[in-house]
Amino acid sequence: MRMVDIIIKKRNGEALSEEEISFIVDGYVKGDIPDYQMSALLMAIYFRGMNLEETINLTRKMAYSGKVLDLSGIPGIKVDKHSTGGVGDKTTLVFAPLIASMGYPVAKMSGRSLGHTGGTIDKLESIPGFKTSMKDEEFIKQVKEIGIAIVGQTEDLVPADKKIYALRDVTGTVDSIPLIASSVMSKKIASGSDVIILDVKVGKGAFIKDINSARELAKIMVGIGKGFGKRIVAVLSQMDQPLGFAVGNSLEIVEAIETLKGGGPKDLKELIVTLGVETLKLIGDYKNEDEAKDKILEHLNSGKALLKFREMVKAQGGDVKIIDDYSPLLNAKVQKEIYSLEGGYVEDIDAHKVALSVMALGAGRDKKEDKIDLSVGIRLYKKVGDKIEKNEPIVTFYANEVERLKKAQEIFKEAIKIGNKKKDPLPIVLDIIS
Amino acid sequence: MRMVDIIIKKRNGEALSEEEISFIVDGYVKGDIPDYQMSALLMAIYFRGMNLEETINLTRKMAYSGKVLDLSGIPGIKVDKHSTGGVGDKTTLVFAPLIASMGYPVAKMSGRSLGHTGGTIDKLESIPGFKTSMKDEEFIKQVKEIGIAIVGQTEDLVPADKKIYALRDVTGTVDSIPLIASSVMSKKIASGSDVIILDVKVGKGAFIKDINSARELAKIMVGIGKGFGKRIVAVLSQMDQPLGFAVGNSLEIVEAIETLKGGGPKDLKELIVTLGVETLKLIGDYKNEDEAKDKILEHLNSGKALLKFREMVKAQGGDVKIIDDYSPLLNAKVQKEIYSLEGGYVEDIDAHKVALSVMALGAGRDKKEDKIDLSVGIRLYKKVGDKIEKNEPIVTFYANEVERLKKAQEIFKEAIKIGNKKKDPLPIVLDIIS
Repeated sequence: MRMVDIIIKKRNGEALSEEEISFIVDGYVKGDIPDYQMSALLMAIYFRGMNLEETINLTRKMAYSGKVLDLSGIPGIKVDKHSTGGVGDKTTLVFAPLIASMGYPVAKMSGRSLGHTGGTIDKLESIPGFKTSMKDEEFIKQVKEIGIAIVGQTEDLVPADKKIYALRDVTGTVDSIPLIASSVMSKKIASGSDVIILDVKVGKGAFIKDINSARELAKIMVGIGKGFGKRIVAVLSQMDQPLGFAVGNSLEIVEAIETLKGGGPKDLKELIVTLGVETLKLIGDYKNEDEAKDKILEHLNSGKALLKFREMVKAQGGDVKIIDDYSPLLNAKVQKEIYSLEGGYVEDIDAHKVALSVMALGAGRDKKEDKIDLSVGIRLYKKVGDKIEKNEPIVTFYANEVERLKKAQEIFKEAIKIGNKKKDPLPIVLDIIS
Repeated sequence: MRMVDIIIKKRNGEALSEEEISFIVDGYVKGDIPDYQMSALLMAIYFRGMNLEETINLTRKMAYSGKVLDLSGIPGIKVDKHSTGGVGDKTTLVFAPLIASMGYPVAKMSGRSLGHTGGTIDKLESIPGFKTSMKDEEFIKQVKEIGIAIVGQTEDLVPADKKIYALRDVTGTVDSIPLIASSVMSKKIASGSDVIILDVKVGKGAFIKDINSARELAKIMVGIGKGFGKRIVAVLSQMDQPLGFAVGNSLEIVEAIETLKGGGPKDLKELIVTLGVETLKLIGDYKNEDEAKDKILEHLNSGKALLKFREMVKAQGGDVKIIDDYSPLLNAKVQKEIYSLEGGYVEDIDAHKVALSVMALGAGRDKKEDKIDLSVGIRLYKKVGDKIEKNEPIVTFYANEVERLKKAQEIFKEAIKIGNKKKDPLPIVLDIIS
């Protein structure tokens, strides 16, 4: 088998066999297939796509390219969740302790911020002392003991995806639905849970801008999951404006805790309830949606979910005092409130531009190696459709450097649009694919 | 400027600016742009194409990536020729001395065999002593003195194309019309001649199988040439069956000499006359096609072209005795004649399969580094449309190893089809694009 023949086969629009996909992944991980052939193949896949069978085969090969977590020692139905990445997306921080508080173990590996999207691991690291890296045995032990752990992806999990993703990032081959699907799902398969909840973000602040592509991606990921015998559902959620009000690592922790205390932004809460209901439906423990929803709200409002969060923070070495006193999370040097120069309605809050503004403050990474500032970010006071008065506060910037604040403010101006037209609030849940 | 952004731009179907193309070629030659980004871009170009302006810009950047030959010291209108590669294509060996014998200097750099197609340089090296490598000054001096030189491409000519071609070869991005066009034309531009004659091969034994693609390629190459102020024409010629009867390095030299002596195969002669007439039309020295054709035939039949060939062989250190005594060129150990098992008509002689058979004998290269056997090959006795009797000779194999001969015979069986249907001879000239 020669790699160049496989490239030409895909280039000509033919489907690759399981044997060929094995040859590619094995050869690439071993270093027998050079980057320049892999990137040519990836670009051919970008143009020609892959069918479900090819995508499942690729997912399997990647999933088993490294160590696969064995969660069988943990009793109960294990739940995992994945978001395709958005702005202000603190969903996992609420969802995971919520589900764990109901007795379903959550063994979650999360990512870091990359590009304009945030990452759960960075957010958690803004809690003083919080440890996001541990050995597999410790990880499994913690889930066994308290029903929850959120850690960074271990080094030896899905090495094929790591290597392929790094190459896609620099060769213009990120936005390929079968490549995204196999990358996400290989990690989910290798992480070993029984139930997989996918949050597919759609809109200006997401990688996928249109609902049809999102639906296609969701269907393929659900198809892959089912192919591996998983219980799986995908919720398509709106990411035109940021989720909730806070964008920035420590600020999002505060908003998550607020939500775990029964408060929090309406859209975030609605999304979490939807994800929760779908989870319970997959597990099958509840009679109907209403009962499931009641149970979820009860766990949020009674503090049961918060208690689980507290246990997790403690178990992972974090300072639990921040749950009651947010001040260590709100310690950026400059906090600048901005007021609206005009009255009217909020017509747009462009999530992508908000993200760029927050990146300008230092909260994001251009490259993996970049250091980020966990304490900076913004807190919005309005959502699309809201009425706003002249001189009413519209946003607070949390910054550590005056130059960066200036740049962030400039970008932010482009992100928000206030006009005379009353717009309906944006729906948060767009579709559910199961 | 970032290479990844340029890749995405092309991937999305946009045209690249002159500045971007400069960035790519400079960066790639210098090594600042890695192979894996270049191959992703090449695959994107494969799918999205390039317009004429982009292709001209790419050609220019490649042409000037190294030394450009200055032929201005040679008086007269300098003629160059290029073939896109075929099987049994010894055209240059006749065409170049023919044109030179009329007083138009031919400063020709040729290639070596690669894949299933032959290369003029390998063929010439089957003449004992013939030197195909010389310094630019020597090359120019010889053309000045005797009006002709055929040498291998010098190392410092179009380094960008060398590097890009090597990458295309292993990444499935060879068959892209703008990439083929810019590769060919960058070498022609850097070679410095005034008149460029392109022989675009079409058919089973060519890189381009269909007439429409060939026409498209020809138009783009002619467009590029004109963009550089060159007098240029493209002849589309049939390559479904091999050109002439001989395939194999030294055997093709014999056939070329036969043609220079006024004999030779009908199709080869017709092609050379057409190329010659088009050349004379571009130069503008002749009143009409008939006069041009007469002149060409006169130079072939009178031995003037042969004399020029003899001068060239002598000047480049070759043994001129082979012109009168072919035996050093026909010295393969085994010569095996094959007879037809049935009577009928020759319906097909698949040039590609013939090439594979000859490669099996050891006459071709899979990789650039491969050694080749210059004395092996085949000599056909028939062309498509010819009548053949039972037990009439159909081919002679020239081989040096019994095992290779066996393999070559097996492959050859698949190449030839004898049936009851009288087929018309295949036309040799398919179209002329100017």
